[in-house]
Amino acid sequence: MPNTKLMPIEIIPVMGIGEVNKGDDLAQLLLRACQRGKLGVESGDIIVLTHKIVSKAEGRVYDLNSFIPSKFAIRVGRHIGKDPRQVEAILSESRRLVKMVKGLIISETFHGFVCANAGVDQSNVKKGNLVLLPKQPDKSAQNVKRFIKKETGKNVGVIISDTFGRPWREGQVDIAIGIAGLDPFSDYRGMRDQYGYDLKASVICTADELASAAELCMNKLDRIPAVIIRGYKFKRNEDASSKSLSRKPARDLFR
Amino acid sequence: MPNTKLMPIEIIPVMGIGEVNKGDDLAQLLLRACQRGKLGVESGDIIVLTHKIVSKAEGRVYDLNSFIPSKFAIRVGRHIGKDPRQVEAILSESRRLVKMVKGLIISETFHGFVCANAGVDQSNVKKGNLVLLPKQPDKSAQNVKRFIKKETGKNVGVIISDTFGRPWREGQVDIAIGIAGLDPFSDYRGMRDQYGYDLKASVICTADELASAAELCMNKLDRIPAVIIRGYKFKRNEDASSKSLSRKPARDLFR
Repeated sequence: MPNTKLMPIEIIPVMGIGEVNKGDDLAQLLLRACQRGKLGVESGDIIVLTHKIVSKAEGRVYDLNSFIPSKFAIRVGRHIGKDPRQVEAILSESRRLVKMVKGLIISETFHGFVCANAGVDQSNVKKGNLVLLPKQPDKSAQNVKRFIKKETGKNVGVIISDTFGRPWREGQVDIAIGIAGLDPFSDYRGMRDQYGYDLKASVICTADELASAAELCMNKLDRIPAVIIRGYKFKRNEDASSKSLSRKPARDLFR
Repeated sequence: MPNTKLMPIEIIPVMGIGEVNKGDDLAQLLLRACQRGKLGVESGDIIVLTHKIVSKAEGRVYDLNSFIPSKFAIRVGRHIGKDPRQVEAILSESRRLVKMVKGLIISETFHGFVCANAGVDQSNVKKGNLVLLPKQPDKSAQNVKRFIKKETGKNVGVIISDTFGRPWREGQVDIAIGIAGLDPFSDYRGMRDQYGYDLKASVICTADELASAAELCMNKLDRIPAVIIRGYKFKRNEDASSKSLSRKPARDLFR
């Protein structure tokens, strides 16, 4: 369903969440930061969280040394110029390898996301540590949504984001790897434009666009790991899953 | 350079541009619509325009019958189930074919964009017509920027957007095909995160993120072909070009 999007949409940074550690209740940290910033959460808001704070809260940060490289990982590491422990970490998160080139492995994660290094990342954690993607990012998003509903009575959508590269385009953009409460697509199929043309190919991945919009307010250096998007009228979907965001093999022309 | 993005960013729809025809001065139509909507343009705003109104103003709408299919186009059309005149139009816009499957040609346009059907589109034009991408979308963006500067004294960034599909991800998102006045990237390379980690892989394509953010306020049915993004602190670049957004062959793993 298209929105009647006539009011401005606001992208509001949530400041002061601070360092997140294993076992922290992220939803509570988020709400407290909103309160300190005099940012009331409203029904219809979309909360976008970078996966990194989700991963940290869920204990998905590991010492590089905890990955014991297999012979394969050692050989790959030597061949592409990558720490074999990191290669092992990437393999442990992958179900299919797509490309291996200098310094880079593109793989399909166990969730189904095709991305660089299976989402395994070294930035914004202590040196010698690796951050892995949340195990069930939809569940992580649902937990945040549920907590906010319980504490404030407000019905929000939640997106967990990550930064992905793209074929053919330079630079990376943020996309949605976990969702709760919102339909990730605006589906125009079967509708007609003003000239009567059937918009048969038009399915917009608004979840990814929302994640990208949120990134504009985040900052890799200044610790803004969460934003509120206000004024975007989304279609509610309590059963939404990020599984729907990955192309099925039969529809994937670049498999 | 990262932004200090502490204020909300606003995405403001520009209503009432109306039907755009060949020869129209798009920048003037835009400014008039802003004035009627009591939307003053401010220095630092980013104006995002869908390519469709740019193409229409620049006369890039053609009768399907004006494309005389070659033998090759006829054969391809029969093979993939596509009107051979449309195939001819796509070939006329392409410099390299990437994939041909049922109903779809993915090609590299003469500008260097890899996309479905070379950007040739049938939606939101009169039946029997095709819209082609602007010939020089950066120049189109610069023209709008220059007119706004002349008329209002305000220094804005301009993005021309289109809706592209992506490998591995369902649904389409808006990206930038023309830019003026703004650096399309936030480049964190050489900077260090709070833990001292060198962000060596972090180049964010903010131009594409801005185009995606704008799409959230647009609407394929309701004729909102322009938005103003306000409050996003971008790095100015008077020589910016959308050429930098397409991956160079040597860096393209999926060529």
